Amino acid sequence: MNRVLQIFVVLCATLSATLLSAQQNIGGRGGINSVAVNDDGSVSFSYYNPDAQSVAVKGDFITLRGETLERVELFEAESGIWQGTTPPLTSELYYYSFIIDNRVEVRDPASIYCLRDVGSLISYFVVPGGRGDLYMAQDVPHGTLARVWYSVDDAPERRMTIYTPAGYERGGRYPVLYLLHGMGGDEEAWVATGRLAEIMDNMIAKGDAEPMIVVMTNGCMQHLAAPGYSAEGMWSPYMSGSMDGSFESHFEDVVTWVDRHYRTKARRSSRAIAGLSMGGFHALHISQHYPTLFDYVALFSAAIFRGKEGVEIYENLEAKLDRQFASHPRLYWIGIGNEDFLYEENVEFRALLDAHNLPYTYFESSGGHTWRNWRIYLTEIASKLFK
Amino acid sequence: MNRVLQIFVVLCATLSATLLSAQQNIGGRGGINSVAVNDDGSVSFSYYNPDAQSVAVKGDFITLRGETLERVELFEAESGIWQGTTPPLTSELYYYSFIIDNRVEVRDPASIYCLRDVGSLISYFVVPGGRGDLYMAQDVPHGTLARVWYSVDDAPERRMTIYTPAGYERGGRYPVLYLLHGMGGDEEAWVATGRLAEIMDNMIAKGDAEPMIVVMTNGCMQHLAAPGYSAEGMWSPYMSGSMDGSFESHFEDVVTWVDRHYRTKARRSSRAIAGLSMGGFHALHISQHYPTLFDYVALFSAAIFRGKEGVEIYENLEAKLDRQFASHPRLYWIGIGNEDFLYEENVEFRALLDAHNLPYTYFESSGGHTWRNWRIYLTEIASKLFK
Repeated sequence: MNRVLQIFVVLCATLSATLLSAQQNIGGRGGINSVAVNDDGSVSFSYYNPDAQSVAVKGDFITLRGETLERVELFEAESGIWQGTTPPLTSELYYYSFIIDNRVEVRDPASIYCLRDVGSLISYFVVPGGRGDLYMAQDVPHGTLARVWYSVDDAPERRMTIYTPAGYERGGRYPVLYLLHGMGGDEEAWVATGRLAEIMDNMIAKGDAEPMIVVMTNGCMQHLAAPGYSAEGMWSPYMSGSMDGSFESHFEDVVTWVDRHYRTKARRSSRAIAGLSMGGFHALHISQHYPTLFDYVALFSAAIFRGKEGVEIYENLEAKLDRQFASHPRLYWIGIGNEDFLYEENVEFRALLDAHNLPYTYFESSGGHTWRNWRIYLTEIASKLFK
Repeated sequence: MNRVLQIFVVLCATLSATLLSAQQNIGGRGGINSVAVNDDGSVSFSYYNPDAQSVAVKGDFITLRGETLERVELFEAESGIWQGTTPPLTSELYYYSFIIDNRVEVRDPASIYCLRDVGSLISYFVVPGGRGDLYMAQDVPHGTLARVWYSVDDAPERRMTIYTPAGYERGGRYPVLYLLHGMGGDEEAWVATGRLAEIMDNMIAKGDAEPMIVVMTNGCMQHLAAPGYSAEGMWSPYMSGSMDGSFESHFEDVVTWVDRHYRTKARRSSRAIAGLSMGGFHALHISQHYPTLFDYVALFSAAIFRGKEGVEIYENLEAKLDRQFASHPRLYWIGIGNEDFLYEENVEFRALLDAHNLPYTYFESSGGHTWRNWRIYLTEIASKLFK
C-alpha cells in the first residue's frame, strides 16, 4: 500500500470505530489533508471512492483568472483514490465539492473545515498569500467572541454574537459596528462564512482598522436564535426573514442594551451599521428611520424597495433620507457586484440619492450575490470606520 | 412527484446554485428533515441516492434496549429516495450515518446538525422526552459562551471557552468548574459533543445545579487553539495531547487568570476540576500536585498511570494523594463504563485509594469510552458541586 492508501484505511477504521464501538475520543485522522495548497497557489485534492466511475471537483474557484476551468477532473491514482490539481489560484477562500459519476455532489468527507450558509454545510479551503490571509487566523492578538442572550422589557431572550477586540479586557470605551446578515441567516453567519473575527483581528493588528466592538444580531424576528440554539429544536433553516418593520423597530432597544452592557462610546459618531442583502435593507431603513443613531451606514448587495406595505418605517423614504443626510453621516457606502440579482434595484436607489443630492460612496465589484463579495465589502468599510 | 421528491429536487437545485452561481445566501432547504423523531420515540430517516443498490442507517442507537438491531435498512420509497424507521429509542443524543451498498459510509448530506469529535464530523439527532431533553436548548434562561484568549507572562496567547451562567451580568461572584477534554480534543469539545451549555442551562434552570462558571481549556500544549483558530492554519486534528507535566504546571496560571478576569469565588471550596480520558488524567494530577486549588475532583473514564517518566508532577503519587485527602476534598468522584478500555487502570487506582483509606464516590455505567457516558457523568457531578 502506498502512503495515501494506508492513511485512508486507518481513517476508515477510525471513523467506524468512532461511530460504532464503545471507545470514543480515541480516533483521529493523523494529519492527512484531502486538500493541499501548493506553493504556487495550485491546489491538490485527494478523495477516496472505490465505486466511482469518475470524480471531479467543483467550486467557486472555477473560471477564476479568466480560464475556462469548468471543473477539475480527478484521476484514480491508486485503487479508489482520486487525485488532481488545479491551476494556480488567486489567494481567496473557496468552496468545493466532489461530483461523483457526473451526478452526485458530496462535500469532502475527510475535512472538518466546512461552513454553514443557511441550510447547507459547504467544504472550504483558503489559498494564502493575499486576501486569503485576512480570512485565516494569524499570529496576532485575538478578540473575544461571545454568544450572548439579551432581552428587551419582558420579551423572550434573543441570541446575538458579540466580538470585542483584543485589549478590551484592559478597559477603555470602544466604537460599535452593528453587522447584519441576509435572509435565512442568523447570528452565526458573519462569524462562520463572513470570517468576521479573522478579518477584524488581522485588520486591527495591522492598524488597518480601529479597534471596535462588532454586534451581530439575529434579524429573523420569528426565531430567537440560530438553528439548534433555541427551544425550537433541530429545525432546518430556510429563507426566513423580517421585512415588516419588526426588526427595525426592535433595533433601538438592541443599541440601548449594548450600550448598557458593554463599554461603548455611546454616541452617533462611534456607531456604524452595515448589512448584506436583507441586512442591507435593514441597515438602510434603520438608519433613515432613526437618523440620530448611526454616523456610518454600509449597504452590501442590499435589497432596497421591498418593505411590507403600510409599515410606517418604510414610508416617506425620500423625505427621511433628506432628514438623515441633513446631519451629514460620515459614511454612506453602497457596494454591489455587477452580476448581482439586486443590481438594478441599487441603480434605482443611487438615482434616487443622486436626485436628492445625497452623497454616498459607491463600490462596484465583479461577481454577484456572494459571500466573497461581502467579505471584501467588510474589509473595505472596516478601514473607513471611526477614523 | 410526491412531496419528498419535489423538495429534494428543489434542494439539489439550491445547493448547486449556492456553490456554482453568482447568487448566494438565497438558498435553503425549506424545512425538510432527513431525520424525523416520531411521538413514540422511533426515528424515520429519508435519504436521496438514485445510484445506490442498498442503503442502511448505522448509529450508536444500535443494540439499545437489548434488541439486536444491527442497522436500520432503508427501502427505496420513490425513485432514489430511501426511507426507514427505527423501533422506539430511549431519549438520548445519537450519532448516525448512511451505509451505501454495504461499503461506503457517509454522513447525512441533508442535515446541518453535526458534531466534530477530533477529526470527524458526525451527524446526530436527539430523541426528547428524557435525558435527551438535557442536551437540547429549552425555553430557559441561557448562559453566555465566550471564546477567550489568555496569556500567562509573555507566553503566546492560548484559547479557551468560558461559560457564564444566566444572570452573571447582573453581578455577584460564582464558583468555577474547570472541565477538561480528552486526547485529540480541544476547547471546543465539551461545548460541541459534550453539550455543556445546554446541560448547564437546563440543570441550573431546574435548580439541579448551582449557577457556576465553566472554564474549558485546551489541554494540548503543542496547540494554541482548536484547528483553524490559530496561526497553525487548517491542520487536520489527530490524537495529540500533553502528558509530560506541561499542562498541569501551566494550570495554576490559568486559575489565577480566571480569578483575575471573572467574578469568581476565588477559593478552594468554590473550585472544581473534572475531565475525561486524558482530561481525567490532568484533573487527577493537577489536584494531587496542587492540593490547595480544588475541593471537588471528578475523573471521567480517566487515564491514570501514564505520565511521562521523570516528571516531578507525576512522582510520589501515593504520598501526594495522602496529602491531598488530608484536607478532606468535598468530592472525589470516579466514573467509568464497564466496557471502557481504561477500566482495569481505574480498578487499580481505586485499589490504591482503598489501600490508603482515601474516600471517593464511584459511579460505574454500562458502555465504554463514549461521549454518551461523559455527558451522563457531567450531569451526575454537576448536581453535587458547590452545595
